[in-house]
Parts: sequence; C-alpha cells; structure tokens
Amino acid sequence: MTLMVQKYGGTSVANVEKIHHVARRVIRAKEAGNELVVVASAMAGETDRLIQLAHSASDDPMPREFDSLVSTGEQITVSLLAMVLNKLGHKAKSYLGYQVKVLTDGDYKKARILKIETSQIKEDLKKGYIVVVAGFQGVDKKNNINTLGRGGSDTSAVALAAALEADVCEIYTDVDGVYTTDPAIYDRARRMKKVSYDEMLEMASAGAKVLHPRSVELAKKYGVPVYVKSSFNDEGGTLVTKEDKDMEKEVVSGVTYDRDQAKITVIHVPDRPGVAARLFTPLSDENIPVDMIIQNASIEGYTDLTFTVSRKDIKQVRKLLEESGKDVGASGLQFDENIAKISIIGVGMRSHAGVASKMFATLAKEGINILMISTSEIKISCAIEAKYTELAVRVLHDAFGLEQER
Amino acid sequence: MTLMVQKYGGTSVANVEKIHHVARRVIRAKEAGNELVVVASAMAGETDRLIQLAHSASDDPMPREFDSLVSTGEQITVSLLAMVLNKLGHKAKSYLGYQVKVLTDGDYKKARILKIETSQIKEDLKKGYIVVVAGFQGVDKKNNINTLGRGGSDTSAVALAAALEADVCEIYTDVDGVYTTDPAIYDRARRMKKVSYDEMLEMASAGAKVLHPRSVELAKKYGVPVYVKSSFNDEGGTLVTKEDKDMEKEVVSGVTYDRDQAKITVIHVPDRPGVAARLFTPLSDENIPVDMIIQNASIEGYTDLTFTVSRKDIKQVRKLLEESGKDVGASGLQFDENIAKISIIGVGMRSHAGVASKMFATLAKEGINILMISTSEIKISCAIEAKYTELAVRVLHDAFGLEQER
Repeated sequence: MTLMVQKYGGTSVANVEKIHHVARRVIRAKEAGNELVVVASAMAGETDRLIQLAHSASDDPMPREFDSLVSTGEQITVSLLAMVLNKLGHKAKSYLGYQVKVLTDGDYKKARILKIETSQIKEDLKKGYIVVVAGFQGVDKKNNINTLGRGGSDTSAVALAAALEADVCEIYTDVDGVYTTDPAIYDRARRMKKVSYDEMLEMASAGAKVLHPRSVELAKKYGVPVYVKSSFNDEGGTLVTKEDKDMEKEVVSGVTYDRDQAKITVIHVPDRPGVAARLFTPLSDENIPVDMIIQNASIEGYTDLTFTVSRKDIKQVRKLLEESGKDVGASGLQFDENIAKISIIGVGMRSHAGVASKMFATLAKEGINILMISTSEIKISCAIEAKYTELAVRVLHDAFGLEQER
Repeated sequence: MTLMVQKYGGTSVANVEKIHHVARRVIRAKEAGNELVVVASAMAGETDRLIQLAHSASDDPMPREFDSLVSTGEQITVSLLAMVLNKLGHKAKSYLGYQVKVLTDGDYKKARILKIETSQIKEDLKKGYIVVVAGFQGVDKKNNINTLGRGGSDTSAVALAAALEADVCEIYTDVDGVYTTDPAIYDRARRMKKVSYDEMLEMASAGAKVLHPRSVELAKKYGVPVYVKSSFNDEGGTLVTKEDKDMEKEVVSGVTYDRDQAKITVIHVPDRPGVAARLFTPLSDENIPVDMIIQNASIEGYTDLTFTVSRKDIKQVRKLLEESGKDVGASGLQFDENIAKISIIGVGMRSHAGVASKMFATLAKEGINILMISTSEIKISCAIEAKYTELAVRVLHDAFGLEQER
C-alpha cells in the first residue's frame, strides 16, 4: 500500500464548504488504495485575525503566548476536517503538535522540527484511519507550543512524510504547480513538470512563493518526492525531485523576482579588518538576514559597503547601523527601498558558460541598470530599480527561451 | 503569602479591553501580596461560534474532535491575558490543560477531572509568575483533549484551588454574588454574604446559574472557600463555605426556579416489580437525567407514572418511551412542556418543622396548583404551571421573609 502525505493550505480550507471539497479529494485518494496522512493550515484569514488580536493585546506580544494563540488556527481546521471526513463515512482522527508529537527546538515563531514520533499515527493508519495533523506547530521538550513561521505547514508535511517514510508528499495550493516565472507578470510562463530540489530551493529563496524553503531543504535531505498541485482542479502539478540528466540540458529553468528588498550603503568606511564584522554582527544578533553584499574597490584606505535586507527589517537596521556606523567612522548611510532582485536559476548553469553575460546583456539592451550582483552555483541575482521588475522578468524569460517545453 | 485562585467568565474577558480590565484586577491582588493563579473562560460568544462551526461541518460532530475544536476558545483568552499582564509589567505564563497537566477521565464533552499536576505551577509561582490556566479543558491519559461541559471553568478553578491548597478561590462573574432569588424576577432579592456548600449545591441544581454544581461539590469535598464576586465592581460578593451556626437560624435561604422542565406521564401501567426499571433504564443509558418522579396510588393493579426531564431531552425521551411504554403495556403517554419547578432551600429546614406546609399554603393562597412535589433534606421543590413562575417566586420570597438581612 502507498503511504501518502497531503497538505492543504489556507485558501483550500477557507470555509466549511471548501473543507468538504478537500475531504472528498482525500477520500478519493484513500479509496484508490492509499494510506492517508493529511496536514492542514489555518483557514485563510484566520492566522491574520489571530495576529491582529495579539497586537491589540500588546505592541510586543511574548513569543511563547503568541505561538500558543496563533496555533489555534490549525487546531480549528483539523478538527473540522476530521468531522467532515467522518460524516462522509470515513474514520478520521485529528492530531495537534503535542499529540503526535512533533518535537521542536524551542525557538518561538520560527522553530525547527527536531523529531516526529510516528508510532501513534502508524497505529491509526493500520486501523484504517485517515490521520489529520495540524501543520505549523510543534512542542519543545518542556511542552511549550512552538510555531514554524509563515509557510511552516509545508515543512510539517514534508517532515511527516520523511519521518513516516511516505511514498509521496502532495502539497495542494491555489496554483497548479511551479512555473518558469510568475504567470501574473508574464503570460508566457510555463508550468514545469519537474524541478530539482536545488532549483526549487533557490527559487523559493529568490522570491517564488509556492513552497517554503525549509520544506524543500527537508525534502532534499530525506529524498521525499514532493508534488505541488492545485486543490481546485486535477490538471497539472509539478514534481520536485532529485536532479536528473534531463534537467541539466536546460541552462535556465526559471526567472524569479523579489520586490521585498531594500538596499543600504554605508559610506566611506575605513578599509581594514574587523569593520564588516562590526557592522553585520548586530544584524545577525537580531536574526536579520542580509542578502546581497558588495564592497567597492578601496580608494585611499576607504571604501563603501552596500547590502540588501528584507524591507520589513529596514527600521531596525537603520537603528542598529546608526550606532555601529559611527563606531567604525563611516561618514553616512544611504537607504534605497526602490529596488528589486531578479534571479535566473538552473542546474544547467554548472556546465554552461556565458549565462551571466547573457543575463547582463539582456538587461543592458533594455536600459536596465544593474545595481548589485550575486551568484551561486545555480543562480545569478541582480538588484535593479524596482520599476523595471516586470520588464526584466519578461526579457529574461524570452532570452532563455523558457516558454518552450523541452 | 496567600495563594489565590481567581476565575473570570466569558463576559469578563469578552474583548481585549475587558481583558485589560481583568489584568488590572489580577495585578492589584498580586501587588497586595498574593500569589496568583488565574483561570479564564473563552471570550463571550466564542464558544457558541465554535459550536456553530462544528454543526456546520457535521450534524453529529465526533465528540473527540468537538472538544479539540471548542477548547481553542480558552486557549485564545489565556494567551491574550498573559500578553496583557506582561505588557503591564508583570511576569505571566499561560497553560493549557495538557501543559498543566489537568488529567481527565476521557468522557468527552462532560469529562471529570481526575488529577491536577501542580509542580510546574508551583515552580512558576515561586519565581514570581502570575500563572494563567485555560478553564474548561483537560486531557485524558492518551492526551486527547476533554472538555468539562458548560460552566466547566468554575470546576477548573475550584479543582486547581484544591490541588494547590489555595487559601481562597474567587469566581468573578457578571453578578456581584448569590442572591436569595433571581433579582431579574423580584427586586426584593437580597445578596447573601454567606451560603453553605450544601445550599449552594441545591440552588445550582435547582436552577440558580451562578456556579456550576460540580464546582460546588469539589469545593465542599476539599473545603475550598469560594467567593463569588462581580468583575465589574468591587462591592459585594458571597462566600460559599462550610455550614455554621448562623446559617442554621435561617429556615429558608433562597428561592429558585427552573423553567427548563418538561413533565411526562406514562398512563395506566401495571403496578408490578420491574416496570419502573424497564421505563427508566433506557433513559439512564442515554445519560438523560430524570428529576422529579411520582407514582399514583395503584387502582386495580394499574398506576400512572409521572416524571420530569430537561426540556431539551424531550424529543429523545419520547422516542425511547414509545418503545418501552409499549413493552410494559402502558395505554399512552402525556407530555407537558408548560411547567416550571420552584424550590425553597435552606439548611435550617433540618431543625424547623412546618416549612413544607407553609410553602404549600403560600402557593395555594394564590391559586397556584402543585403538580408534583419532591424533597431533600434541605430543599422542597414543586412543579407548577409555568405561567405562575414569577408570582410563586415573589410570594415565597415574602412568606419566608428573605428580603430581611439576618
């Protein structure tokens, strides 16, 4: 028998009617002879409502209480889904993080899963139950509720699939797969039938919102095949899986963009050891991720340091840098929130030369100035002025011929 | 140091503003030098919303899932209250049933508390925390969530007070104490300063809605002094405590009424052993409580059996009796939903004669016909036509001089 983990996001379970729809899809898979473990998110809007409630109680809600509060969203969905499955004639049982149990590391609001106990779930599956598990939540070793951060239910699903050694993990969402770029921006975007873990990871980190990066990391680590499908129709789907020969033939698989970027320049800092550490340590201490970093050539012992952060962190970054910038003798700070990051991704880059220059030339031809560049083995990212985002996506998609099925 | 358990009901925590109000009251008690454990209910309306959600998912929601769903109401309140306490400068921590843990017997929707672990709470209190505990919920030994039934948060509070050997348990509600009768029906109702556990128990069972009967049983068993107070002002309050000499001086302490009654007569049943058992066993098998029971004198080997049940059970009772009534050879069934139960309660009855006859005479004088009578050591109840409810309450209150402070 095939063991299948299915995950349904907030829009798929937005109300009781949609939960019925999900239940029927689950039952179809069960009746096709699969064992079913279903992970569900909070009903669309519910998590936002709970977060708002927390902020009306306190400007700075305690993380422990915040997690206990917002985790009720998934608790509501899973009990409703179990009720509906039961009503439709199928034995079902819902589990919360502590009931499974999903052991997490105690880092509130962005915890990592350490271990998942599977004995209870396996026992229920053997008895013919459909097991419904609350996504997004776990408990630390002192039984405090931890949440996994936004999109954490994807991670719950993949981690469960790994722990249960499931044959497949299906992620149901409101799009029918992973596209070469955002179809909302470019109508020539093409759904990929298959994408490698590494490409998916880079795409997720570079702004594609289909899967949570942590879930892709886990899927890669444990070799879990992940299907991204639409919960609203039966067409399409994208398989996220191990790299194969076919994938390498494509130089570039996708173009992504990320508008949630801000650029900061620390002007005229002394070019000597320890300066970068002095500037960036306060940011990492506050868990603020820094993305692209460039340093100008040094002139007369001085240089400028430019980097990007998520736009939401900009206030805090400004505060921290005003202090550390003074310490290192910088002459000033420059902030630019009108930027975007455009990335091209593909495992084929490893074996194909000239990809970067083709990207730069394509952007240059449209008069798009490149503000910063960063590269990884299978990704090239450029920071550009935000107003060129859509244009850049379209011309790069065309330049690398992504609309063609290969 | 005094250890105090305070319980706040749904209307006291109906929104974030009211939760602030509760927090300030808690802090006042803490700053007066008490250790504080606070039990909170779901925000007013929330439990009803969740029940409605359950019934929109299924006509007959599975009890296990139902309990998991509705227990989120208290989870939301306690995390918000802990956040607010923290914002106001006091260390606070919220606990759910499984975190405490509150061990229950596995009887979904009306579970009983078997045991409460106190080590974690005591440790937090020692560190200066205000401990906030979700009312209404516990977990059975397999970690399934159980709820305690409507009004169960009172029981949570008293059980916690008993387990922690607290000095006092304060129940905050929307009235400022226990009255000689319902002030909404009779403006001469007087707040009692003190009432015995037994009287409170009879009052709660006879329709007074201030305290959950199970909580009074527990308070009596463990000798927990319970103060009923208003969360909206500092006046008044009623102490529920051990019986003392003063209480015995009063013949009658209170008059209660219960309109949620229906009367059933099983007509012309053979008067022989086993008949009553055949009629009532199916009801007790379905957990339907039967209140008053009377049997007419037997005429030629036949009798009529009359009893009352809660009005909400009437449909199910009819179904069960149509079958069992036929079995025992009854000639028919009569149903009357237009009745009410009026009770007078007082520990003084034990040592005062003539209380019952005074009650009957008082009702007779107003032309109120008594349909059924039942008595306990400290209570006399009469079923009457529902339309006389208010009149009966007023004349009995006057007849026993309850408006006068004694």
